[in-house]
Amino acid sequence: MKINPRCAHCLLTRVHYEARLSTDDEQLLHKAVMTGIDELNRTYKPGKPAGEISTAVHQKVYEVLGDEDPYLELKKLSNKTAEDIFPVAQKRVYEDDVSDKELFRRSVLASVIGNTFDFGVVGFDVAPEIFDETFKQTFENGLDVDDTSSMFEMLDNVVYVADNCGEILLDTIVFDIIKKLGGKITLVVRGAPILNDATLDDVYDYGIDKKVDRLLTTGSNAIGVNFEEAPNELFEAFDNASLIISKGMANYETLSEYNLGPIAYLLKTKCESVASDLGLDTGCTIAKLVNEQ
Amino acid sequence: MKINPRCAHCLLTRVHYEARLSTDDEQLLHKAVMTGIDELNRTYKPGKPAGEISTAVHQKVYEVLGDEDPYLELKKLSNKTAEDIFPVAQKRVYEDDVSDKELFRRSVLASVIGNTFDFGVVGFDVAPEIFDETFKQTFENGLDVDDTSSMFEMLDNVVYVADNCGEILLDTIVFDIIKKLGGKITLVVRGAPILNDATLDDVYDYGIDKKVDRLLTTGSNAIGVNFEEAPNELFEAFDNASLIISKGMANYETLSEYNLGPIAYLLKTKCESVASDLGLDTGCTIAKLVNEQ
Repeated sequence: MKINPRCAHCLLTRVHYEARLSTDDEQLLHKAVMTGIDELNRTYKPGKPAGEISTAVHQKVYEVLGDEDPYLELKKLSNKTAEDIFPVAQKRVYEDDVSDKELFRRSVLASVIGNTFDFGVVGFDVAPEIFDETFKQTFENGLDVDDTSSMFEMLDNVVYVADNCGEILLDTIVFDIIKKLGGKITLVVRGAPILNDATLDDVYDYGIDKKVDRLLTTGSNAIGVNFEEAPNELFEAFDNASLIISKGMANYETLSEYNLGPIAYLLKTKCESVASDLGLDTGCTIAKLVNEQ
Repeated sequence: MKINPRCAHCLLTRVHYEARLSTDDEQLLHKAVMTGIDELNRTYKPGKPAGEISTAVHQKVYEVLGDEDPYLELKKLSNKTAEDIFPVAQKRVYEDDVSDKELFRRSVLASVIGNTFDFGVVGFDVAPEIFDETFKQTFENGLDVDDTSSMFEMLDNVVYVADNCGEILLDTIVFDIIKKLGGKITLVVRGAPILNDATLDDVYDYGIDKKVDRLLTTGSNAIGVNFEEAPNELFEAFDNASLIISKGMANYETLSEYNLGPIAYLLKTKCESVASDLGLDTGCTIAKLVNEQ
């Protein structure tokens, strides 16, 4: 996905947000924001992938803040909230006696709802205390774009690119069902902390490594996946996958730049740039399969 | 008021907003936003007045858009809405038989409520259709900071620096009462279109020139008042005033940089930067008198 003019102020909003998470020092806040503006000024070109610009901006701001992980506390809170909501989600997926295909659809829906766990995007923060109600409502509404039937036929060898902390706990419901159906899973998380994205720390903290067949990282703290920094194993895994599942907007922004497939984008359209790139409105829950050849 | 780190993304939000008001051309939108970023990068320094930076950014963006007045349609809408609300406001100010001091307080309150007419500031847009209800509620709540009693003693020779379109119609209720009390009014509007601020066009369209004793402009399309571009008559008027009344955030941002007084700031604290500079929360309606010597 290419940069949209509306991405600039949203990106700077997030820079200010993470700078405030990191420090109360007014001079350092100025410096962080000015660094974000300068880097944005340097990297913003029409037609350039949005993820490339946001990666450059956030990495530089982290450097100036002298903080490897400004979102650390929020990520803990996000994981904690997901722990609380997990039994509710699990129960809703498995209740009644339904087909494997319906089970899979429900698990995907639960994981997409998990994608509403995203701190710092303008207008779509969901406070933990209202997540419970949001979850129930969204589960009843179902998916706005639902390609889970087609995805269901492609679960032999799945590469699953995770997104945020918290959310990754709900992804494990999908993992369980893919395993139950006899499929293999390669889980991919960020190579180092960026925003509130899941890393190996979260995977090990929750024993998620034991639920999947293979564990890889994106090789860096890029937003989404930066192919220039990704390990060869990841390219091979993408090549050999029966299905790539990409969670969240940042992975969509970056993976949609490459000719990968079949790939299913599981996300909530939280911003206008991503929504319009997908030809959808904001606020949609989607499991959209592309490059299905 | 000095630039606050949180001003940067808000300013860019407004740049994007006005660019979209002006054009649908995606390339021009990119160019406008990139110009805003570049100008922000060039001008943002800690300790610099916020108004200086926002003026530079908006003026450059207008130039690139090739549009002298992107807010023209919105300003018309704003005036139209104020026309609709005017009789409601007028009635509430004059109802019952109250003292002149109470009449003045009510008129100030009505004009501060008029300050909620502000399109484009993140989080505080008030849709015309809900203004009516908002007005009634706010009128009943009164002013959060109310220095109208002291102001009432200083109405001999008032310089009134207006803010937005729409709002300026409600300001005329204050003018009427100052005139009734025997005071003189010098009204100051922008010298050329900037944002949704009132200019001479609005003054003449509504015959407001006939309600005041003297009419001046800020001499330019700066945000608020830029002393480097203001005419000598304005400095003289400020020097000779028994009271300066400054409407809205942009005038506060710029006039608070100079040692003027006595000066009363009439505004709603719509953003955190202005609110915290005043030692208040956002969402307050204030008539705050300073430099009262």
